[in-house]
Amino acid sequence: MKEKKFAARNLSMLIDFYELTMANGYFQSGRKDTIAVFDMFFRKIPDNGGFAIFAGLEQLIDYMKNLEFDEEDIAYLRSRGIFCEEFLDYLANFHFECDVWAVPEGTPVFPNEPMVIVRGPVVQAQLLETMLLLTINHQSLIATKANRIARAAHGRAVMEFGSRRAQGYDGAIYGARAAYIGGCTSTACTVSDMLFGVPAVGTMAHSWVLTFDSEYEAFKTYAEIYPDNCTLLVDTYNVLKSGMPNAIKVFDEVVVPKGFRPKGVRIDSGDIAYLSKKMRKMLDDAGYPDVAIVASNSLDEYIIGELWSQGAQVDSFGVGESLITSRSSPVFGGVYKLAAVEHNGVYTNKIKVSESIDKITNPGFKTLYRLYANDTGKAIADYIAFHDEEIDESQPLTIFDPIATWKRQELRNYTARKLLCPVFEKGKLVYQSPSLPEIQKYCLAQVDTLWDEMKRFEFPHRYYVDLSQNLWQAKRDLLDSIR
Amino acid sequence: MKEKKFAARNLSMLIDFYELTMANGYFQSGRKDTIAVFDMFFRKIPDNGGFAIFAGLEQLIDYMKNLEFDEEDIAYLRSRGIFCEEFLDYLANFHFECDVWAVPEGTPVFPNEPMVIVRGPVVQAQLLETMLLLTINHQSLIATKANRIARAAHGRAVMEFGSRRAQGYDGAIYGARAAYIGGCTSTACTVSDMLFGVPAVGTMAHSWVLTFDSEYEAFKTYAEIYPDNCTLLVDTYNVLKSGMPNAIKVFDEVVVPKGFRPKGVRIDSGDIAYLSKKMRKMLDDAGYPDVAIVASNSLDEYIIGELWSQGAQVDSFGVGESLITSRSSPVFGGVYKLAAVEHNGVYTNKIKVSESIDKITNPGFKTLYRLYANDTGKAIADYIAFHDEEIDESQPLTIFDPIATWKRQELRNYTARKLLCPVFEKGKLVYQSPSLPEIQKYCLAQVDTLWDEMKRFEFPHRYYVDLSQNLWQAKRDLLDSIR
Repeated sequence: MKEKKFAARNLSMLIDFYELTMANGYFQSGRKDTIAVFDMFFRKIPDNGGFAIFAGLEQLIDYMKNLEFDEEDIAYLRSRGIFCEEFLDYLANFHFECDVWAVPEGTPVFPNEPMVIVRGPVVQAQLLETMLLLTINHQSLIATKANRIARAAHGRAVMEFGSRRAQGYDGAIYGARAAYIGGCTSTACTVSDMLFGVPAVGTMAHSWVLTFDSEYEAFKTYAEIYPDNCTLLVDTYNVLKSGMPNAIKVFDEVVVPKGFRPKGVRIDSGDIAYLSKKMRKMLDDAGYPDVAIVASNSLDEYIIGELWSQGAQVDSFGVGESLITSRSSPVFGGVYKLAAVEHNGVYTNKIKVSESIDKITNPGFKTLYRLYANDTGKAIADYIAFHDEEIDESQPLTIFDPIATWKRQELRNYTARKLLCPVFEKGKLVYQSPSLPEIQKYCLAQVDTLWDEMKRFEFPHRYYVDLSQNLWQAKRDLLDSIR
Repeated sequence: MKEKKFAARNLSMLIDFYELTMANGYFQSGRKDTIAVFDMFFRKIPDNGGFAIFAGLEQLIDYMKNLEFDEEDIAYLRSRGIFCEEFLDYLANFHFECDVWAVPEGTPVFPNEPMVIVRGPVVQAQLLETMLLLTINHQSLIATKANRIARAAHGRAVMEFGSRRAQGYDGAIYGARAAYIGGCTSTACTVSDMLFGVPAVGTMAHSWVLTFDSEYEAFKTYAEIYPDNCTLLVDTYNVLKSGMPNAIKVFDEVVVPKGFRPKGVRIDSGDIAYLSKKMRKMLDDAGYPDVAIVASNSLDEYIIGELWSQGAQVDSFGVGESLITSRSSPVFGGVYKLAAVEHNGVYTNKIKVSESIDKITNPGFKTLYRLYANDTGKAIADYIAFHDEEIDESQPLTIFDPIATWKRQELRNYTARKLLCPVFEKGKLVYQSPSLPEIQKYCLAQVDTLWDEMKRFEFPHRYYVDLSQNLWQAKRDLLDSIR
């Protein structure tokens, strides 16, 4: 019998210790039933891009609905000697009671707008902080990067190949999921296919070629075993002098005689622009215009964009470490901030002031609208309002920059879509996650509602995220009262 | 009954799909019993530093000893329609048979030297690739970064606070473990304390302060509950005008009367150099010279180094996203390359040639020595040799640069230490991991054997990693034979 403990993780205890000291503190100070409203939002788009892609909600739901503390957890906490027995009992009999709203996975999102809202007993809402942030930050980071890379590829396939360089096992497993949401077509990570249906692909490494006495023998053996799915790695020795001639020979001698068309050739080194054009010509001349060229080797959106502009003849890209770690911008800085508390039936708006004005939070129990122009279908602005503020689309709506307030416009002929969906109601799950292909489809369709100016990698146009007049005024009043 | 599937991962199937196509290919081509030797090494030190720290071996061992394929795995593989039944049977009855050597966790390591060597049936050795690289790459990345940050802190405590920004759950859990190996004193991540004994610490967030009607009430309530461990977060409103006076008042009114000394004050925003000096003076003037100042807020080794040089009065640093993602250098580029194959009793050295000479691999079944000067105790060079090459310390040893071969020196009065330890012998575990505090202690002691010149962050001295004369010659002959 083998040990499987290594494979199981205790996600309930993946929690910053201060959440426990605070929760116990709320308990001991008679505040555990205070209702708190927390917002998750982020402040800065990775890579200074024009938008991010929200992802990870399905795993956040899994966490919330499975949240419980077992005997081992309680014993550990008791051993710390600072938690009261009533609090430990509460955890041992934990019953999730929060309301949760979130934007759907795959939605383009912007700084400072609530993407997840949690309302519930402060002792519970506080305990969710680490896992909520960790889950959404990680998958949003990778989905955002994947979408950038997929856009740079201009419709050619992008395969996620980064497992070996991921930051931990989940970095690979959920990273492959998030990459698919953002637009990748497949992954090298087999378990992500089993778990989420992200198609797992892969053929051979250089080690396969080196194991044999010759490249030709390695190719021939592979083609005999996989004639119907024959992609050969042609850069172990010399791409143009050895790899390509041997590949074409094996296509001629093995694949075609067995009644199949070869699938492709792959390079993982050298100058992709130069080599791919030569390879394309060799394949075309040999009667294989349908055989694809696959390229990998430290690619990212910038290199792919340059290869595209240089006319590289690449049909699909394998992208590794730069995608799975979002190498050029490896942090998604989501935060989870208290926005309001209810005590004895009265809500009080809460705000975190800061020296830096863009770090001041938006107070109150809120909702989020996206406003689309009816004529173009494009997104015009996002609009943060109090939770009970409704928009009457038949009436003009004035929106204004919350800092440069003289910058305002009156919208007509628009559609207002509520982005935040109910996910849990008093701890009961009321949301059904779409399938992963549906999420990807939704993501790409929503990205299409954004103006091209927002999709530039360098200095993209800044999208408007505005506050309702009521919310703006309440924030202003609160700041005045503190100063 | 709650579902716990989310918490369990199938690490046996966390495998790049090409490892399966190749393994099946070795099986079907009658090569499954070919003995292969693979090396794990890396090419570039993160952050262009002088050395990296090897970590993750304990988890790699856990993986290897638990490697098995269950019915669900086999059913998935069968559904792909490309694997032969004999191969699926082999996986279903998988029995680990490899020999594995590795350097101990916490060892400073250098580019191009083998850190892990696997020798075994090619079909098995190939299947380990993804998990081996993922495990070692991730933890070595974080241990390396943590060691840099701990060195920048010049003996002050560094606490790992990054869970919420980690790249996936394991990024947080094993990241905290690796950070401790590199020199962190503690973590915010509770489960890493339960699993590995990395001390979990934490007190309060801004949300605690905001939940109350006033900062004073929030501090007082906290101090009443935790008088013996009272660290207060003083930057929710205004550090010097509000936070510090309220903290001192609560220390005077609550902590001291209860018979305790307060522990500390923490800031998470503002100018740490300026504020910490003012805070130190306020604490000293109020009779609290023993109360620590804790600082966090997007810190890394560069900012900590500057704060130190500016005389910031900080006693311990909380470091988040920059550590847990190794933000400035988020990829540890370990690779796993075929070095030799044995077929019918004969070993054949294997080499991957490349356009770029520093990407050419070192062939053969090897071992790794570290050479220390007996007079200073400092490490002089690492020395890669064939596995059966022994060093006679009573004799002079000539070492030379493997590329600039005219650069050579003759060593006398040195000690040669074999860095690679046997971990598995024919699939049987023969290695006992030290405790985590032992690993940390070993790490810091080994870093002490390195010259200070290698510890600079900018343009550190490059350490010598040389080849034995025999290995150098064999590599040269192999390259000549290919050209």
